[in-house]
Amino acid sequence: MPQSPTVAFIGLGIMGLPMAANLVSAGFTVRGYDRAPQQTDRFAGKGGTAASSLAEAVDGAGVVITMVPDSPDVDEAMFATGGVFDSAASGTLVIDMSTIRPDTARTVAEEGRIRGLRVLDAPVSGGETGAVEGVLSIMVGGDSADFHAAADVFAPLGTAVPVGPAGAGQTVKAANQLIVAGNIQLVAEALVFLEAHGVDTEAGLRVLNGGLAGSTVLTRKGEAMRHRRFEPGFRIGLHDKDMGIVTAAAREAGVPVPTGALVAQFIGALKAQGHGGLDHSALLALLDRIATEQK
Amino acid sequence: MPQSPTVAFIGLGIMGLPMAANLVSAGFTVRGYDRAPQQTDRFAGKGGTAASSLAEAVDGAGVVITMVPDSPDVDEAMFATGGVFDSAASGTLVIDMSTIRPDTARTVAEEGRIRGLRVLDAPVSGGETGAVEGVLSIMVGGDSADFHAAADVFAPLGTAVPVGPAGAGQTVKAANQLIVAGNIQLVAEALVFLEAHGVDTEAGLRVLNGGLAGSTVLTRKGEAMRHRRFEPGFRIGLHDKDMGIVTAAAREAGVPVPTGALVAQFIGALKAQGHGGLDHSALLALLDRIATEQK
Repeated sequence: MPQSPTVAFIGLGIMGLPMAANLVSAGFTVRGYDRAPQQTDRFAGKGGTAASSLAEAVDGAGVVITMVPDSPDVDEAMFATGGVFDSAASGTLVIDMSTIRPDTARTVAEEGRIRGLRVLDAPVSGGETGAVEGVLSIMVGGDSADFHAAADVFAPLGTAVPVGPAGAGQTVKAANQLIVAGNIQLVAEALVFLEAHGVDTEAGLRVLNGGLAGSTVLTRKGEAMRHRRFEPGFRIGLHDKDMGIVTAAAREAGVPVPTGALVAQFIGALKAQGHGGLDHSALLALLDRIATEQK
Repeated sequence: MPQSPTVAFIGLGIMGLPMAANLVSAGFTVRGYDRAPQQTDRFAGKGGTAASSLAEAVDGAGVVITMVPDSPDVDEAMFATGGVFDSAASGTLVIDMSTIRPDTARTVAEEGRIRGLRVLDAPVSGGETGAVEGVLSIMVGGDSADFHAAADVFAPLGTAVPVGPAGAGQTVKAANQLIVAGNIQLVAEALVFLEAHGVDTEAGLRVLNGGLAGSTVLTRKGEAMRHRRFEPGFRIGLHDKDMGIVTAAAREAGVPVPTGALVAQFIGALKAQGHGGLDHSALLALLDRIATEQK
């Protein structure tokens, strides 16, 4: 990789803005673009270079990073007229860090390859806090040589791990969302069960977390769940999108994820009922409602 | 508690034998009894005192510990002619460390109280290794004064935490088994999903365990599951019993545990198919079978 290539950063939202800012702090020249002009302006306020269009951001950049909400947004960023594939020079490293469908990631990689681009899918976990602090967990799919070429760009953002060919990063992220949703649901079930039996749930969750039932969900969310504090965190609306990805990708691959499918229905119901803005631990609120007889 | 009371230890199986031996090592006089004479003999070989009947073990003991397979075994040990309630003097501390139904534990506590006994339910987690090393996690239900009176007896066995009134220990243990079964099932679902997509599962599970999807199940069982090593560990047959306990206790308390109920069906199916002797991580084998088309 040439030293400190210019990085085009597309998508300066809750995650993208602090990530792009961390690249600026690490010494990269970063041209940022967001469909919402005020986000591009905020990035300029953090020392970034504001681009007035996606094409302007990408033109001449050695690395293009996209961090947008969903698969259609990635499709648009890549394939639209004036999009990444129109504007990036051959050999450019294109890193999509959005959380999208693995099959979309594979299509983007293949179409990019045809155009002489080097494409990685590199979704992250760790949330806004991880983005701000530069400690994201980055799951990377694509060619090994391209992964190594991207190492300097990943370093200010967090810890990157290569997990397989194109799409593999998105597959691991999908598996992550499956396990997280399920673990939250299980803690919720355990909690209503303990409460119904008059157990001291503070001591109960503590002793559970010390044994084979221990989990990062229990550590990070157990106390907030006990007190029914559901401020996000990670929103039901986004987790609903991700459960759609993992259940569809599992069906298409011929593997069953029955527990994931069950929890996907609960998350979908919460979203459809207007609770998409709550933290995903609000799965407990749905269970509370089933458990408590309405008078 | 009088200093170093004589302890009667009923049930010298995979868990009970090393627990009783640890009490001997800690300086207690321990009279052991098991329905299988060879187990009582093995205990004598470890420095314990062999009793030829349950009544002989209990007679004059200050503390009685029961560690038997299931609710009916506890019922029999407590209520049969020549059982604990027939043989224990008023004021004796009776600690049931078996994993049984919370309602059975409450009945035992109430009936014991009527007879002037002090009863605790104190199921454990940590498995055979935890029993041998004296590092069990002990979830204790019952009166606070009785919990404190039992502290010296618990100390050589592991860490005891009071979690509520009679039955609360069993309730927390039931919740433990619910979460553990669910977490195993979720790791299994994630694993077949990752494999079907050609992901490097060693790197994949590692990166998953570093984020919000992290769990003790992933840490302790992830690698064995990747390699389909299902030697117990904790047997499907016992976990099936425990899933029966938690789903029944949830129904009776009016709370739903839908994910637990789903996984209980899978564990039950494995047991009914003759796989009760495998480790509970063999939930993955069932999923493999669904995922792989039979030719």
